[in-house]
Amino acid sequence: MQQRGRFITLEGGEGVGKSTNLAWVAQWLTAHGVEVVRTREPGGTPRAEAIRELLLSPQADEPLDADAELLLVFAARAQHLAQRIRPALARGAWVLCDRFTDATFAYQGGGRGIDPARIAELERFVQQGLEPDLTLLLDMPVDAAQRRLQGRLAAGGHTRDRFEQEHSAFFEAVRGVYLARARAAPRRVAVIDADAPLETVQARLSACLEERVREWL
Amino acid sequence: MQQRGRFITLEGGEGVGKSTNLAWVAQWLTAHGVEVVRTREPGGTPRAEAIRELLLSPQADEPLDADAELLLVFAARAQHLAQRIRPALARGAWVLCDRFTDATFAYQGGGRGIDPARIAELERFVQQGLEPDLTLLLDMPVDAAQRRLQGRLAAGGHTRDRFEQEHSAFFEAVRGVYLARARAAPRRVAVIDADAPLETVQARLSACLEERVREWL
Repeated sequence: MQQRGRFITLEGGEGVGKSTNLAWVAQWLTAHGVEVVRTREPGGTPRAEAIRELLLSPQADEPLDADAELLLVFAARAQHLAQRIRPALARGAWVLCDRFTDATFAYQGGGRGIDPARIAELERFVQQGLEPDLTLLLDMPVDAAQRRLQGRLAAGGHTRDRFEQEHSAFFEAVRGVYLARARAAPRRVAVIDADAPLETVQARLSACLEERVREWL
Repeated sequence: MQQRGRFITLEGGEGVGKSTNLAWVAQWLTAHGVEVVRTREPGGTPRAEAIRELLLSPQADEPLDADAELLLVFAARAQHLAQRIRPALARGAWVLCDRFTDATFAYQGGGRGIDPARIAELERFVQQGLEPDLTLLLDMPVDAAQRRLQGRLAAGGHTRDRFEQEHSAFFEAVRGVYLARARAAPRRVAVIDADAPLETVQARLSACLEERVREWL
C-alpha cells in the first residue's frame, strides 16, 4: 500500500522571509528524493485563489465582516483540501504549504479578535482531524519584519494588500498567537529564529529538518 | 424605542415565479406604509454579490467541493446580515429577501446531499438565533416549474447558471426539503400553491399577508 505523504506548513508574519525559505525547504526535500507539491493558503487551486482575491482586495466602502472573512478562509481551505492537499497526500506526495490554519488563529483570531473557539469550530468542521505533520514557524520581532517589508516596498513591484496595511499592534497580536500555538504544540511546531542573515536561517532550517524529517524519509 | 422591523423571506425552486411575486409582496407592504428593503441571497451587498459570482459560475475543470460551497453560502450570508439585514431591521425597516437559509437546506442539503446537521451548525454559527419572521414558500410540481423555465430560456435573455443546469431528481429533492421544512415550522412558513395563473397566486399571497402580517402593521 502506498504510504501517505507528509504535510508540512510554513508560517510567520509579513516580512519574515517565508517565500525564500519555502523554496529552500522544497529544494531540501526534493534533494532527499521526495515528490513535493508546493502550494499556499488562502488559495492553491483556481477556485480557492478566486476566494483569496475576495479576502485580500482592499474595499474601503464595504468593510468585510469578521465572520464572513473567517468563513471565506475556511471555504478556500475546504476547496484546497478536497482538490489538492488530500489527493496529493493520498498518492504519497508531500505537501509543502505556505500558511495554513495556524495563520487563521494568528490573523483572524489574534489580529481581528475573533474568539479562537469559533475558529476551532470551523477547523473541526472542515479538516475533520487533518493537521500538518510539521509546521515551521519563522519568527522575528515585529519591528525587524516591518523594516524588511518596507525595504521590499521601497524596491517597488509590491503594493500592500488588505492585511499588510494593518498596524504594529495587529502584527504583535499575530506574532503572540503564533508563539503561543508553538508552545502548546511543540511536537508539531518548530520555531525558527528568522532574525538573522539568510544563510544562518537556512542552517537552522537544515538542522530542524535533519532532526524532525529525516526519520520520515 | 424604535420597534425592530420584520424579516420576510420568499423561497421556492427555479421557475416558480419568485421574482414577479417578490415585487408584488414589496408593493403590498409599501402600500401598507412599511419601509421595505428588498434584497436577495446569496448576495445583497457588493462583497456578498462577489461571493455569489463564485457560487454560480460554472467551471467544469474544477468541481466546487460541497463543503466549500456551503461555507461560501454562509460567508455571503454573514456579510449580508452584518452590512444590510441587521442594520435595516434595527432601524425599523422590514427586510424582504429572495431566498435565505431554507434555500441552503433545500439546495445544499436536499440537492447536494450535505448532512442537514452540518448546515444547522453553520446556521447557528452565523445567525446566532436570527430567523425570518415569515417565509413565503412558492410551491409547484417540478415538471410545471421546469416548463416555465424552458419558456424563459426559449424567450432568450437568460442562460442557465450552475444550479439551473441540475436535473429533475435534484429539483425533486429541493422541493421535498422545502415542503418538509414548511411542515416542521408551520408558524413561520406559509406554503403558497404557485401552480396557477399569476392573479390567482397573488390572491393567495394577499390572503396570506392579510392573515399573517396585518397584525404586525
